[in-house]
Amino acid sequence: MRCDVVAVGTELLLGQITDTNSQWIGEQLALAGIDSLLQVKVGDNLGRVQALLRRMLADTDAIIVCGGLGPTHDDLTREAIAGVMGAELVHDDAVADVIRHLFESRGRRMAANNLRQAQVPVGATIIPQTRGTAPGLICPVSIGGTTKVIYAVPGVPHEMKEMVERAVLPDLLARGGDAGVIVSRTLRTWGESESGLNERLDPVIARLDEVGNPTLAFLASGWEGMKVRLTAKAPTQGAARALLGEWEREVRALVDDVVFGTDDDTMESVVLQLLRERGLSLGLAESVTGGLVAGRITNVPGASEVFRGGIVSYASEVKFGLLGVPEGPVVSEAAAMAMAVGAQRALHADVALALTGVAGPTEQDGMPVGTLCVGIAIGDEVQARTLRLPGQRDQMRQMSVISALDLLRRTLLAR
Amino acid sequence: MRCDVVAVGTELLLGQITDTNSQWIGEQLALAGIDSLLQVKVGDNLGRVQALLRRMLADTDAIIVCGGLGPTHDDLTREAIAGVMGAELVHDDAVADVIRHLFESRGRRMAANNLRQAQVPVGATIIPQTRGTAPGLICPVSIGGTTKVIYAVPGVPHEMKEMVERAVLPDLLARGGDAGVIVSRTLRTWGESESGLNERLDPVIARLDEVGNPTLAFLASGWEGMKVRLTAKAPTQGAARALLGEWEREVRALVDDVVFGTDDDTMESVVLQLLRERGLSLGLAESVTGGLVAGRITNVPGASEVFRGGIVSYASEVKFGLLGVPEGPVVSEAAAMAMAVGAQRALHADVALALTGVAGPTEQDGMPVGTLCVGIAIGDEVQARTLRLPGQRDQMRQMSVISALDLLRRTLLAR
Repeated sequence: MRCDVVAVGTELLLGQITDTNSQWIGEQLALAGIDSLLQVKVGDNLGRVQALLRRMLADTDAIIVCGGLGPTHDDLTREAIAGVMGAELVHDDAVADVIRHLFESRGRRMAANNLRQAQVPVGATIIPQTRGTAPGLICPVSIGGTTKVIYAVPGVPHEMKEMVERAVLPDLLARGGDAGVIVSRTLRTWGESESGLNERLDPVIARLDEVGNPTLAFLASGWEGMKVRLTAKAPTQGAARALLGEWEREVRALVDDVVFGTDDDTMESVVLQLLRERGLSLGLAESVTGGLVAGRITNVPGASEVFRGGIVSYASEVKFGLLGVPEGPVVSEAAAMAMAVGAQRALHADVALALTGVAGPTEQDGMPVGTLCVGIAIGDEVQARTLRLPGQRDQMRQMSVISALDLLRRTLLAR
Repeated sequence: MRCDVVAVGTELLLGQITDTNSQWIGEQLALAGIDSLLQVKVGDNLGRVQALLRRMLADTDAIIVCGGLGPTHDDLTREAIAGVMGAELVHDDAVADVIRHLFESRGRRMAANNLRQAQVPVGATIIPQTRGTAPGLICPVSIGGTTKVIYAVPGVPHEMKEMVERAVLPDLLARGGDAGVIVSRTLRTWGESESGLNERLDPVIARLDEVGNPTLAFLASGWEGMKVRLTAKAPTQGAARALLGEWEREVRALVDDVVFGTDDDTMESVVLQLLRERGLSLGLAESVTGGLVAGRITNVPGASEVFRGGIVSYASEVKFGLLGVPEGPVVSEAAAMAMAVGAQRALHADVALALTGVAGPTEQDGMPVGTLCVGIAIGDEVQARTLRLPGQRDQMRQMSVISALDLLRRTLLAR
């Protein structure tokens, strides 16, 4: 089964917005085991979209077209597909009613041109809209005795994603003779390289290669560590989840020490949850990261139950004054511990995390660029660790955030 | 003149990375007045890349191919283009020497497969590499008596951008009979909508439409305000810059009150520069933004000359204690002013900026979600302003950062 992708929109070609839709669709198709060999951006031009679809259908079984389903005159995906199908475009009363009700329920008047969205090529099946006003379309096209298919979905990412998951992928899998469901589970890791994970997981990978289901993939997520993703295919959601659970245990048996969370977890959400479970409040003292840790912590809804605040002690005098750090080198384990204790006291927090280091461009206190000293105070216990991080200013600062949060996570778990 | 774009890489189709290269190239082509009507992602497959290039050349004058110039066996852009040209691929001694020197100068051994990068199709012109090991290629292709051209550039964004600017765009413009240079100037604005800017700039836009050069475009940059970009074409850099200077004055005459910077300026770099010029140090007190302002300020190299530190007073008790805010509602102009004065004192800063507000999901102190109170203390003078910002939690927090920095900028300029 092969499904290529077309993103329609002149603004994409002009570089005014990034086409992230075809990337997301490509990822979903790969997860579902469907080949996608060509992904194309084309402008809002009826002749060009039609010529492109005709040419692409010669090589592929299916095409997903994103965008061009809006109500204005330059939204021409419906016309283009109808042309390729050799079908008439007709007004669908039921679709029109749904659109009219959508506007009424929001207390807004429907402009006449919204009825363009109720035009459907004869022979197409409608994918009902649940988020926007435009329905999607499943359009069979006969070519030399074979039936191929064009799917039309909106260009608005959250509308597109919901429709692709709900209707397009199941339809594609059914056409491919594969009526199962695809479910994946991501383990988030920090502290091990891709090759290191690969080596440690080698026995599991070998067995997975034999059974073929689920599959295992490594996904780099930049400063946020490596993801290990298991993807299972099964007749039902329940069966897929059971299979995933079984293999997740096998994976964790080999690398659980570097797994900090699953799926939508972030390092900061995990740390806040550990603190919440233990009834502990958190304070921060940041120098090298200059507020980045606090900014991430406070982006987690509900952070206020746990997080009391932070002190960004960028100038050394702020460390000496507000945090009570003894005068001397400020990039040291002693300074990091004093900062943590100072933050604990000043912010009346049970736990404090402190970061001091050298982001560059030049060394400081005789410490090279990339040095990070982390101090952690929990109750009366204080400890510090020194790390050497790679990268230029911005990368070093971002690595510092997640490295320090991971140290705090491990310290909380070890207690 | 039409130039389409091909991004080569199986990882692009699988959605493992986003193709931002073709977006950037699309923007540069649009700036240069060159049409780009098709942009395609294709995998690392010789037959498919070749078939695609042949098909695309039928419709376009030129193609820029990004990626597939590396040293490994799946880097096959060179082979694909040679096939389309009907030319042999030969070893170029000069290119090989450059690659060898690059490795030696970095104290590394060159692997034998790096010599793949010294393969050049007969008839192609080399674009010398200045950043990576792969040279680019300018490859003329004769089709039915017409000469078209394929450019090959690396997939690594900073290598690609440098080569496109230095060699590809000038070559394209020359082929289009247009030997001039393109220079643009961006005015960064905050506080006016696109339609508002459009209305105010109407007289200038009308005159620019008549003269046709420079052109003016509005670019949304999300939470960072609107950009107004002037793009001039002229025989020389000097002439282009003179033309831009002349029209920048015309634009500023109408909207200078909302222009906070130009080109690579950011709101935080502009604020730091104003403080530096006045010899003033800065402290912060952040509640609703929880460290985001400090995180952005400290991302500007040289921030330490001006920035002393910040207090993230997330819990109300931290405001009452560390900042000396009188007990009472903490989302108010009085609290914002007290926070600013408290930060000024605690951090020994000449100037302090304070932010308190409601990011949601629920109201606080009877103030609705979206309320932001900003306090500014400069020497003995203290003032506050209340703003109502749109958006959900994350958007409201990001809008708060730039809105508060803009208020500080205006206050400093007014003194």
